[in-house]
Amino acid sequence: MNVHDLVATPDTVHWGYFDPDLSPVLTVADGDLVRIEAVTHQAGDAPDLLMDLGISRIFDEVTDRGPGPHILTGPIAVEGAEPGDTLEVSILEAQPRVPWGTNLAAHWGHLYRCFGKERVTVYRLDLAAGLARAAFAYDWDATPLADAPGTIVPPDLAARQPALPDVALPLRPHFGTMGVAPGVPGRVSSIPPGDWGGNIDNWRIGPGATMYYPVAVPGASLSVGDPHVSQGDGEVSGTALESSLNGLLRLRVRRDMSFRFPLLVTPTEWTVHGFGDDLDEAMTIAAERLLNFLVDHLGLSSDDAYSLMSVACDFTITQVVDARLGVHGTVSRRLFVGAA
Amino acid sequence: MNVHDLVATPDTVHWGYFDPDLSPVLTVADGDLVRIEAVTHQAGDAPDLLMDLGISRIFDEVTDRGPGPHILTGPIAVEGAEPGDTLEVSILEAQPRVPWGTNLAAHWGHLYRCFGKERVTVYRLDLAAGLARAAFAYDWDATPLADAPGTIVPPDLAARQPALPDVALPLRPHFGTMGVAPGVPGRVSSIPPGDWGGNIDNWRIGPGATMYYPVAVPGASLSVGDPHVSQGDGEVSGTALESSLNGLLRLRVRRDMSFRFPLLVTPTEWTVHGFGDDLDEAMTIAAERLLNFLVDHLGLSSDDAYSLMSVACDFTITQVVDARLGVHGTVSRRLFVGAA
Repeated sequence: MNVHDLVATPDTVHWGYFDPDLSPVLTVADGDLVRIEAVTHQAGDAPDLLMDLGISRIFDEVTDRGPGPHILTGPIAVEGAEPGDTLEVSILEAQPRVPWGTNLAAHWGHLYRCFGKERVTVYRLDLAAGLARAAFAYDWDATPLADAPGTIVPPDLAARQPALPDVALPLRPHFGTMGVAPGVPGRVSSIPPGDWGGNIDNWRIGPGATMYYPVAVPGASLSVGDPHVSQGDGEVSGTALESSLNGLLRLRVRRDMSFRFPLLVTPTEWTVHGFGDDLDEAMTIAAERLLNFLVDHLGLSSDDAYSLMSVACDFTITQVVDARLGVHGTVSRRLFVGAA
Repeated sequence: MNVHDLVATPDTVHWGYFDPDLSPVLTVADGDLVRIEAVTHQAGDAPDLLMDLGISRIFDEVTDRGPGPHILTGPIAVEGAEPGDTLEVSILEAQPRVPWGTNLAAHWGHLYRCFGKERVTVYRLDLAAGLARAAFAYDWDATPLADAPGTIVPPDLAARQPALPDVALPLRPHFGTMGVAPGVPGRVSSIPPGDWGGNIDNWRIGPGATMYYPVAVPGASLSVGDPHVSQGDGEVSGTALESSLNGLLRLRVRRDMSFRFPLLVTPTEWTVHGFGDDLDEAMTIAAERLLNFLVDHLGLSSDDAYSLMSVACDFTITQVVDARLGVHGTVSRRLFVGAA
């Protein structure tokens, strides 16, 4: 088993899209570990705090951006992965790179019409305590709308206002966007999540979790970005608490399991994801997928699975801000006496 | 402080509706305790297991039913409660009356089109372990559709099939339907939840939780029913794990707080409820209500509240089967250092 280092540089990131035609920046063997840097595309919200030299280089030199905003590190090819296989990505670590994070209340946020403005709130991370506390906030006026990926807002100490006194929130470090290359040619925006994964924005995709993605192209082509140090279910303001993360991943090719959608497994739960143009569609897809998961992978009859889903499985709003909305359905592993 | 006993009888229940014109069956003083029986309207799914003499009398004698299916105990008047006040209902206990529960996969369930039939699954409760295990299941054929409130299905041991082997689920006892009289004249169906509470179907409305309802009529007129011993977020099959409960409630009139919607408070969380014709409407209303709660009751600026909602508050699907769909938004009390 090898351990690879994938540093985020202008040569190892792509900005705003997935693309099956991208050449791998790293090729690893089945079962290898990868230390990977994931860089937040919102580092420009407070460049004095959220950027270092490595991040600045990416913002300076990568001018081919869009249509999405996310900086993605990769793609990583895994030897032997073929369409129809499942890529298993175990997240062993996700450590903040700098002790700061930023939340943008964006024009695509769920309650934007109540505010009519965009606003940045910057939080200081207390890594020892596992908490974040707001440091300051300012209204966005660097551009008419925060719609240019990677805008750098020069620090203006006068504009920085106190925010959220007496509040401390638990860190939930995770990768907002992680996925394999979609099975369609050309660039696919990094904004909407899909069955290749991508911008799922489920805060449970963090240390201790394992993701399963359906492989669509030889090598799988995994990319990782949009790092978050916390987020609520819903991500209502349009973004999470965004901050660069250094991850440690283990990549395995699974030919013994087959999924057509991204599956999240933690020590306590299995979670399926549904996406839709509205929450009702996302809910229905998540419900159908959980039913199929219980039948195909846990061996329940469909009648039994449906009853269990109603009395013991939970459906939650993943996000309402990523063009395709997300609902996830969760079944606790402890329901299954003796189950793996 | 007095302790009242409210036994469920044909004279103390109303079946299928809220109605501000109903005469109270019990009047209590502000701060009193009430031991209350809540009877499941689905006891007829396995009358040999889910019914006793007291429950049978209600099914035999209460023929005025509808438009909803729920048996509601009450209403209880609280002295001094006036429109504009808030009724605080603390749930101190909720104990199963019989060690059995039933789940109906109903024609109003979320995935009915995938099944094209209705099906009952009966679970045995292990109260000592706090678990439920399926005992048997049968396809519904007592009537073309399970749409007559209180249908009694004669036990047919031959039709009872094994179900859900090797599965045990945790009990989550709660009152699916609890609320005050709506502020509109006449009968209001017990099916859709609303700002008076009613059929919220949030499994967290159980022991240790406190509900706050906006009082619309003098005395508040609280009714309690639709008891559940477990449910998942979503309640996808159309019903929960339904079983009669004996509750112990403390009722208080709060003039120091004002809510226009039902609020759930637990030792760890505050939760607001939104309802809508679809999940997107319910989500938006829940988000607006959580914003208002954080501003009006916790003293945050709206800017600060919106950021906090995105990075640390969770939105969950309450149910998708009650005509008006539900989304709840939750904020953890531990975010507030030193907050009550």
